[in-house]
Amino acid sequence: MISRELEEYINLSQKKVEEHLEKILKERSPEIIYQAMRYSVFAGGKRLRPLLCLLSYQMVSKDQIVDEKILDIASAIELIHTYSLIHDDLPAMDNDVLRRGKPTNHVVFGEAIAILAGDALLNLAAEVCMDWILRYGCRENLIKAAKYLFWASGVEGMIGGQVIDITNSGQDIKSEELLFEMHLKKTSRLIQASCVCGALVAGAEDDVVSDLEEYGKNLGLAFQIRDDVLDVIGDSKKVGKSIGKDIKEKKNTFVTFYGLEKAQQLVEHYSQKAIDVIKKYDNSELLIELTNYLINREK
Amino acid sequence: MISRELEEYINLSQKKVEEHLEKILKERSPEIIYQAMRYSVFAGGKRLRPLLCLLSYQMVSKDQIVDEKILDIASAIELIHTYSLIHDDLPAMDNDVLRRGKPTNHVVFGEAIAILAGDALLNLAAEVCMDWILRYGCRENLIKAAKYLFWASGVEGMIGGQVIDITNSGQDIKSEELLFEMHLKKTSRLIQASCVCGALVAGAEDDVVSDLEEYGKNLGLAFQIRDDVLDVIGDSKKVGKSIGKDIKEKKNTFVTFYGLEKAQQLVEHYSQKAIDVIKKYDNSELLIELTNYLINREK
Repeated sequence: MISRELEEYINLSQKKVEEHLEKILKERSPEIIYQAMRYSVFAGGKRLRPLLCLLSYQMVSKDQIVDEKILDIASAIELIHTYSLIHDDLPAMDNDVLRRGKPTNHVVFGEAIAILAGDALLNLAAEVCMDWILRYGCRENLIKAAKYLFWASGVEGMIGGQVIDITNSGQDIKSEELLFEMHLKKTSRLIQASCVCGALVAGAEDDVVSDLEEYGKNLGLAFQIRDDVLDVIGDSKKVGKSIGKDIKEKKNTFVTFYGLEKAQQLVEHYSQKAIDVIKKYDNSELLIELTNYLINREK
Repeated sequence: MISRELEEYINLSQKKVEEHLEKILKERSPEIIYQAMRYSVFAGGKRLRPLLCLLSYQMVSKDQIVDEKILDIASAIELIHTYSLIHDDLPAMDNDVLRRGKPTNHVVFGEAIAILAGDALLNLAAEVCMDWILRYGCRENLIKAAKYLFWASGVEGMIGGQVIDITNSGQDIKSEELLFEMHLKKTSRLIQASCVCGALVAGAEDDVVSDLEEYGKNLGLAFQIRDDVLDVIGDSKKVGKSIGKDIKEKKNTFVTFYGLEKAQQLVEHYSQKAIDVIKKYDNSELLIELTNYLINREK
């Protein structure tokens, strides 16, 4: 159960982000590539990263409404997240045919268009950011936010994590350090970027930005470990993808490394760590409630 | 034969761009992805787009030296060009095994790493631009340049052109208009972006920016048509890739559409059109000489 306040905020955030993504992704020519981009962007994602971006912005700014100013970068984050899913699902990568209960992009549109749709979404994220920075008069904090985002999604972040993942699949990962590095890069970086961007756009001081970065990093770990747990104990209908796939394909997960029980303990450990960093802030209740909700989620 | 002045400028430009790309692509961990990125970036490309960016900057600024300020965006353009080549060569796309006389990225590193190396280069281009804008104090003309670049490389540009290409391969293209749209997007956009970025960074007035945009658009067409001609009459050792591939794979090119003779006339027509737009500028000699050199090139 979540509070009415959080539920309302989530609904409002999703509505604003959907509308904004609709605006950004208005269909043009050539139709097929817009259809492919839209297929994955509007495939029913939870919009968790934009939500974290908005909640972090709100924690700092104390605005109760969703400011238009934050929607561009929040949407850019979702575009980047979606492109990474399309490319990760490709036959040459994880070879997944199901995502959020629907056929993956390359199954529907073919590999060539799927590769290009991913490229186009990443490219569009950069374009959206440039347009946004220009529209709001080239303020330094906006550029810092965009710079952090592309650092987090690049080789030092998400892409680097995926490289560690695919080069170690099918064999036991060498060390605990490498397992953590993989997930910190592959999952935490974009989640922490969502929080950092929210804070920066709201004009937060450096120490507040650092706290939200640390929060996002730990939340990202807790989130990923819960994902690994759900791959074993989840209900495929709820999760929207095949269950047991990680083990079958000898993926390195927190569960294969630590076992189920220890992994679930780690979920709680890292979510508590996340909460501990931000609980001192007046306006952090919704972020804390969301954290507790996420680690107990069943999908 | 080219003049000593142009030769010296090309050598200086290449040296500066190589050094800058080296700095940007300093090898870090995970090594394999940096190796893959570096393999294609340093595969002996002509650095034509950075050169056009530098020459356009120089035409406007009248600086004889290569200003450090232009090197970031010039390098970002080359990163984007390289990512597009890696992805275009993939088995699901053009399935090319040879590029610039060397095995293509996926042949050496495998498809998964090649996809990620492309992603990483596009992502890095955005990161380089954000860092550059921040470093030079958030000036509007720099953001406009970066925005134009990502517009030109996105669905309205390069990616859109590639979509038209692959969805029409193996069949006759429907119309002359579509053939032109394909090449304007696939090839011209990034070439005109190189010129526009150079002009914007140099602080050019709107009408000068437009003239260099028009120059780049026409040069891009001439360049692409010459490429199509070379696919038929070229020497594979000089060109560095298989000859006759376009026809074998029923690609839609200017040669398959118009025949060899008319295609070569079009090369001359569009290069003359390009030259006509900029010849009124005092400092356009090197750009004009380069244009004449490019349309007579044999590789």
